[in-house]
Amino acid sequence: MDIRAPSTTHLTDAERVDRLRLIRSDNVGPRTFRSLINHFGSARSALERLPDLARRGGAARPGRICSEGDARAELAAGSKIGVSLLAPEEAGYPPRLATLDDAPPLLGVRGAEAALMRPMVAIVGSRNASGAGLKFAGTLARDLGDAGFVIVSGLARGIDQAAHRASIANGTVAVLAGGHDRIYPPEHEELLATILEAGGAAISEMPLGHVPRARDFPRRNRLISGAALGVVVVEAAHRSGSLITARIAAEQGREVFAVPGSPLDPRAAGANDLIKQGATLTTCAADVIDAVEPIMGRPVGLREPDEEPLDAEPAASDRARIVGLLGPAPVLLDDLIRMAGASPAVVRTVLLELELAGRLERHGGGLVSMI
Amino acid sequence: MDIRAPSTTHLTDAERVDRLRLIRSDNVGPRTFRSLINHFGSARSALERLPDLARRGGAARPGRICSEGDARAELAAGSKIGVSLLAPEEAGYPPRLATLDDAPPLLGVRGAEAALMRPMVAIVGSRNASGAGLKFAGTLARDLGDAGFVIVSGLARGIDQAAHRASIANGTVAVLAGGHDRIYPPEHEELLATILEAGGAAISEMPLGHVPRARDFPRRNRLISGAALGVVVVEAAHRSGSLITARIAAEQGREVFAVPGSPLDPRAAGANDLIKQGATLTTCAADVIDAVEPIMGRPVGLREPDEEPLDAEPAASDRARIVGLLGPAPVLLDDLIRMAGASPAVVRTVLLELELAGRLERHGGGLVSMI
Repeated sequence: MDIRAPSTTHLTDAERVDRLRLIRSDNVGPRTFRSLINHFGSARSALERLPDLARRGGAARPGRICSEGDARAELAAGSKIGVSLLAPEEAGYPPRLATLDDAPPLLGVRGAEAALMRPMVAIVGSRNASGAGLKFAGTLARDLGDAGFVIVSGLARGIDQAAHRASIANGTVAVLAGGHDRIYPPEHEELLATILEAGGAAISEMPLGHVPRARDFPRRNRLISGAALGVVVVEAAHRSGSLITARIAAEQGREVFAVPGSPLDPRAAGANDLIKQGATLTTCAADVIDAVEPIMGRPVGLREPDEEPLDAEPAASDRARIVGLLGPAPVLLDDLIRMAGASPAVVRTVLLELELAGRLERHGGGLVSMI
Repeated sequence: MDIRAPSTTHLTDAERVDRLRLIRSDNVGPRTFRSLINHFGSARSALERLPDLARRGGAARPGRICSEGDARAELAAGSKIGVSLLAPEEAGYPPRLATLDDAPPLLGVRGAEAALMRPMVAIVGSRNASGAGLKFAGTLARDLGDAGFVIVSGLARGIDQAAHRASIANGTVAVLAGGHDRIYPPEHEELLATILEAGGAAISEMPLGHVPRARDFPRRNRLISGAALGVVVVEAAHRSGSLITARIAAEQGREVFAVPGSPLDPRAAGANDLIKQGATLTTCAADVIDAVEPIMGRPVGLREPDEEPLDAEPAASDRARIVGLLGPAPVLLDDLIRMAGASPAVVRTVLLELELAGRLERHGGGLVSMI
């Protein structure tokens, strides 16, 4: 069991519907969701305010707000194939994942909730891995599983597949980039079925029917690392997706492990680089266990709600000045506050309005730009 | 040019003969040599005192003292094949090697002295290396050579050979475990000839005619690392000689670099372990250069003579008590001084006597035992 007291919180049916409507509405991502809930107190109140906020942000046309009917239909359809939509404070939501700033407000969970509550290690790597890489991923996954860890990965070809397969008996979790009914690659549907039958699980933040696109994979990768104590990169070339996962993992405060290889093997270049940058060189399960065991002892708390009040309704002149300062080049939120000469609450509110109007893009590190 | 003002010191003929006699006498190693010179002021005085010191140490039979004739004969024979016997303070003695506690008091140098004065990087590794390992060693040696570094290695089969071959044009130094006329392995005589013709060098602390035995190689390895800014281990299995070189290098304060490999390749196990222990993961010459360039800027000074006075003649009772405290289990010099209740000078003197009598063994870390 990972370190968190089992949650006894359970959303009411109405609250779950409201939250699902909010996160499925246009221009509402996990961070905006949280900001809205913090400010308006509930998903219901936030939903009522969405049209007005988006209009003030200059939306060309009103964004689509998910209807109660659509939300109930998604919940019912999920229920048919065994998918529950869980909030971070509910049992069955992976405890470490729940601590992320951008944790999915509702996570589609399928399979054994018990697997999601155990300590996890992520194993990721190249889709076109070498035989040695596949073999090593399998051995590592089996050994970590034998030591009590659930293996989390992305159900992709290559290293992901090898890691899942070797940990079926011990428990493994697949993190999907698309909806639960849109498995990618399709030929891994059978692997997923085997995982679920054996007491593993699959998670996704995407609605049913969502076919994964290229941009969904980096977004998905934050859930792989976020759910885990650490991420092991087995084979990764320069500029590969696994390196993105490793970077995100480091930003999330997760341990990063990398499996070395010959400098003459391009499939090892990314992993070798990670080690140069401080990742733990990993040749066996003990290398991982030694590093994550001390962390397992530390309690995992849910984030404290941010103390970032919004303004009831910013003056039109403030809004115009802030919009004038924004452009396609990302600017730091703090710089924006200083340059605008407005209160942080006013600037945050204008940015929220612009975001809901689909005109703002948020980047990492507190950077924002106008689209 | 490595950082040291070119030395203008030159031993007199008589002084060189005396020093050679002292270091070639029984039971006199580099550390004992230094201790004797520090105490008695000159090799000549030390030579005169040797029989008396050994007798007081309880030598069963008098140790052999190298005669003036033998010393002159060695110098003459060396001269014939181009070997100079140089003291640490003379030009042509590798500056970093001269800083070691156990630097050879006279180093047999053959070839271009200029190569020995340039900054060096050691490349070592397995004798039965993989094709990839040999290729990588060659590429690294060539790139480091192009960047101005002399490559130092042990003239062995495998990685050593590949590193020497690839750096012939840029300059390379072979460190021998036997005498200059006893090349090991014999089939590398031609490689050595090519190295010397191209402006490289060979060094050895052993007398001409000395056939290298197993125990001479670890001893030789301290010269490979000691002469260099750092040591790169290219392929090394668990418990291999290259790991001994890496350990000695770390003790000498040299940088340690290791080239990673697959966890499934036993030839990479030692190098991967070194990286786990803090060695710099190395996939290209820049990894080495980035680490050693800042060090090159630091001046290399000769060691200050130790301030460790000896006693003129310890009392027989002190000597008996110290001998009684010694046995086959190594004991710390500091503990010995405390337990004996004698002055450090008395204890050091008794140990020197015992050493010259061939009854004492010195281990690393200030440990001594009776044979």
